[in-house]
Amino acid sequence: MKSIDISEIKEWERFYRANFINSLTGFKSVGLIGTANKNNQTNLGIFSSVVHIGSDPALIGYINRPLKAAPHTLSNIESTGVYTMNHIQENFIDKAHQTSAKYAEEISEFDSVGLTPEYINEFRAPFVKESIVKYALSLESIIPITLNDTFLVIGKVISVHLPSSIIGEDGFIKLDEAGSVCSNGVDAYYKTKVCNRFGYAKPDQPLKTIPS
Amino acid sequence: MKSIDISEIKEWERFYRANFINSLTGFKSVGLIGTANKNNQTNLGIFSSVVHIGSDPALIGYINRPLKAAPHTLSNIESTGVYTMNHIQENFIDKAHQTSAKYAEEISEFDSVGLTPEYINEFRAPFVKESIVKYALSLESIIPITLNDTFLVIGKVISVHLPSSIIGEDGFIKLDEAGSVCSNGVDAYYKTKVCNRFGYAKPDQPLKTIPS
Repeated sequence: MKSIDISEIKEWERFYRANFINSLTGFKSVGLIGTANKNNQTNLGIFSSVVHIGSDPALIGYINRPLKAAPHTLSNIESTGVYTMNHIQENFIDKAHQTSAKYAEEISEFDSVGLTPEYINEFRAPFVKESIVKYALSLESIIPITLNDTFLVIGKVISVHLPSSIIGEDGFIKLDEAGSVCSNGVDAYYKTKVCNRFGYAKPDQPLKTIPS
Repeated sequence: MKSIDISEIKEWERFYRANFINSLTGFKSVGLIGTANKNNQTNLGIFSSVVHIGSDPALIGYINRPLKAAPHTLSNIESTGVYTMNHIQENFIDKAHQTSAKYAEEISEFDSVGLTPEYINEFRAPFVKESIVKYALSLESIIPITLNDTFLVIGKVISVHLPSSIIGEDGFIKLDEAGSVCSNGVDAYYKTKVCNRFGYAKPDQPLKTIPS
């Protein structure tokens, strides 16, 4: 076991430090956020900091980097109030990662990386047709994190689109069967294999495992 | 592809809805947060909403549920200013999940579930000895999310403890080699297998894969 103090980490080369600290949180929820601007120019960006906020109301957040580094997704969300979140599956990880390149505002990442915009039920923001699990969000709150000029962007789930075969009897979504990947650091993607699913834990009662 | 509207989701039975919405974000960063209160009574809780906030300064957040549902971890963090985050490996997933049971404040989850508190370099909050990747945090900010009475709790990384063998040449931490698990929903745990690691993406340049 090696112990590393923050005073040492601060002295590291910038990309080495970024790789290290970005791996430290563990495997991440990663998704493609689809938006459109007021002229319906589409945008697609990859975000690896998606976080569950609550189930009722159904609220999901993500961290947006400082505006200088990542301006388009957030400004589209602000101007239209809506966006989509699309899980990434193994067959288009490369295209998903390519959306992290800094394209000019007038370029749609859909076209550049070769993913297909899909419009469902007249929702204004584009989904990713190739994605097997996806949902529509309407903006609820943008909370500035003044510590480092990032933002916690929270949306309310409006609709969900996925194969009914992966929804379990108790509502659990079998994401491993969908092939949704998770990420680590800024550039690595993983598939998963279930270890265990457990029942509700109570003090002084043995844990039950449940089929997943 | 099935489309489900939020008006339908709102009518679902509570646990069915919670399972569904909790799976929607994708695989999650999950960890055990170790704290102590002012009398050095220890506490250990599982949190599946750990999120990277920034690398420099190194800031990591997590979502704390409403105080009524999850009071002890946050009140210990507030009163001592420090806490530890400990990755979960396959050999103690059951013990980690058992910390989600509602133990009384005077009961230490370490004792109840059979995990070992470990003190490193006189840091006041306990680490989990069994955990292979762990880090110490000092509280930077508690941001209330008024939409549903949850909190974004942000800490600054103080020190990191892990085997040097899993740190790559470029700082990337090979979490799959550590055996750190991720979670889905409120009760399922997964190991991972790498699909791809990519180089920095640039417009109009082919993506490079890099060894992971």
